[in-house]
Amino acid sequence: MIGEFDRIARYFVPLAAAPSLGLNDDAACLRPDPARDQIITVDQMLEGVHFLADDPPDLIARKLLRRNLSDLAAMGATPLHYLLTTALRADTPEPWLAQFAQGLAEDQARYHVTLIGGDSTATPGPLAFSVTMIGTIQPGSVLRRSGAQSGDAIFVTGTIGDAALGLAAARGDCPDPTGFFRTRRLLPEPRLNLPIHALVHAAIDISDGLLQDLTHLCRQSNLTAHLHARAVPASPDASQLGPDWLMPRLTGGDDYELILAAPPDHEAALRQACAPIPITRIGHFAPGTPRIALLDDPPLTLPDRIGWTHF
Amino acid sequence: MIGEFDRIARYFVPLAAAPSLGLNDDAACLRPDPARDQIITVDQMLEGVHFLADDPPDLIARKLLRRNLSDLAAMGATPLHYLLTTALRADTPEPWLAQFAQGLAEDQARYHVTLIGGDSTATPGPLAFSVTMIGTIQPGSVLRRSGAQSGDAIFVTGTIGDAALGLAAARGDCPDPTGFFRTRRLLPEPRLNLPIHALVHAAIDISDGLLQDLTHLCRQSNLTAHLHARAVPASPDASQLGPDWLMPRLTGGDDYELILAAPPDHEAALRQACAPIPITRIGHFAPGTPRIALLDDPPLTLPDRIGWTHF
Repeated sequence: MIGEFDRIARYFVPLAAAPSLGLNDDAACLRPDPARDQIITVDQMLEGVHFLADDPPDLIARKLLRRNLSDLAAMGATPLHYLLTTALRADTPEPWLAQFAQGLAEDQARYHVTLIGGDSTATPGPLAFSVTMIGTIQPGSVLRRSGAQSGDAIFVTGTIGDAALGLAAARGDCPDPTGFFRTRRLLPEPRLNLPIHALVHAAIDISDGLLQDLTHLCRQSNLTAHLHARAVPASPDASQLGPDWLMPRLTGGDDYELILAAPPDHEAALRQACAPIPITRIGHFAPGTPRIALLDDPPLTLPDRIGWTHF
Repeated sequence: MIGEFDRIARYFVPLAAAPSLGLNDDAACLRPDPARDQIITVDQMLEGVHFLADDPPDLIARKLLRRNLSDLAAMGATPLHYLLTTALRADTPEPWLAQFAQGLAEDQARYHVTLIGGDSTATPGPLAFSVTMIGTIQPGSVLRRSGAQSGDAIFVTGTIGDAALGLAAARGDCPDPTGFFRTRRLLPEPRLNLPIHALVHAAIDISDGLLQDLTHLCRQSNLTAHLHARAVPASPDASQLGPDWLMPRLTGGDDYELILAAPPDHEAALRQACAPIPITRIGHFAPGTPRIALLDDPPLTLPDRIGWTHF
């Protein structure tokens, strides 16, 4: 591997925009838009925890960006810039890093975001990355987890559980004949720039599993979520696997779909606003202790562990 | 160790300010001051790389903040907020984390910064942390590495090399009878809020070693630094160790003092602006290839490895 400063010059300076000051200084300098609020988030990805050692490096980079883009999507924000930290091992091959940077470049172009800073270190442990993502939003229009109201319908975008099935497939625990689950695990699609601000009361992205993230909405909004678990949309590939995989789909993370709380009579408008991404109604909020109650008949039992937590 | 969400509620929510939205959402929401530019930086600290496994956790936390505060100091910015990532092992004891959070609280109060977001993960590897720090600055007054001019004198704040001697002492390689080197390694003093914007042309903080960071100024300003190495100020404890420790002091990182380039006739005003922190003139910039040339007589030779790089 080439030295630290050459590495930055070769792979990261080409990704950097004006506020980065060419990545030559101790920090970036940004002139924020005075008419907008800023939305800022940070997320990490560690080898063996958030990605597998043999995952393609360009897809690791793109998922790293997309996890953060999804956080901005959940707040209703438009992404602008990011800072990147890398912890690489001394034996990380340069082509690995080149492919990682290529992945960043691809998604920078796709999502119109630019690198403005970062930090690089050697590590004796697992490869580790973090992205701090900065976006902007019309003041007063931020989507919160706490905004759900009694009577709101609960919607999800897309299909749920494919990324968890991708992880199961990578471990040899379920088939993935078309490679669809693998793609959903490695390259989630953040649901950015949906014009839903005026239609929904609350939003969250599904990073830790539908049940867990829905529970966050319950807690922050102080409501019970009445969930029709069997209505949670499955992809055609997931449907093939049958009902045994329902709970793993609902507790598995990494979908990066959105859960939305909205008045039921907004459904048609919301469907139109999200198109071509499908939305599915999976339940509703009602007064009660902050928890999930299942509507399914025949009844289903929730597992003890409803989603991903870091111990 | 308690669970992830309880951990956040117990140790991090008390540190969080309004833009964090109580750490309950996917991102923070900030209304930037329209009259100021933003300065943003990110830095990591890994166990075994940036700190030792038995360093006190409150001091690890404070150094983590201070490394970032020092980057803002080098740009001339005033810090405001930060985001924190933690990668803890499942066997990290809760008292360790409590003491870590206590360190954050102490330096939040001291430097008037607040937590606005973060991310938490489990790791099978070394403990790892990062801070993204956000500050503000009067538009147009940012200090750059590229601003040094031919004829500028080179100054440093404080004394140089004590943190490197602290690392040597921790390894048993040099004595530290008063514990001064240990304190300098564990608890650097970022040189924040010095009213030097109108007096200096360029600045950088010493994180990777004086020689390396001075070389960054040379490269960005396209000048030769003529350095009187023996004039680089030593603390009384460092002076006791004798001349054999000069080069380790100049190549060792973690001082977080500032190197400043300023016209020689600004020296008195600069001294007054930095007081009570002493400054010392150690050389000057002149036209030439971007490198360091030593002025010392009898002559000294620079080592091949002039500072800390991450492989």
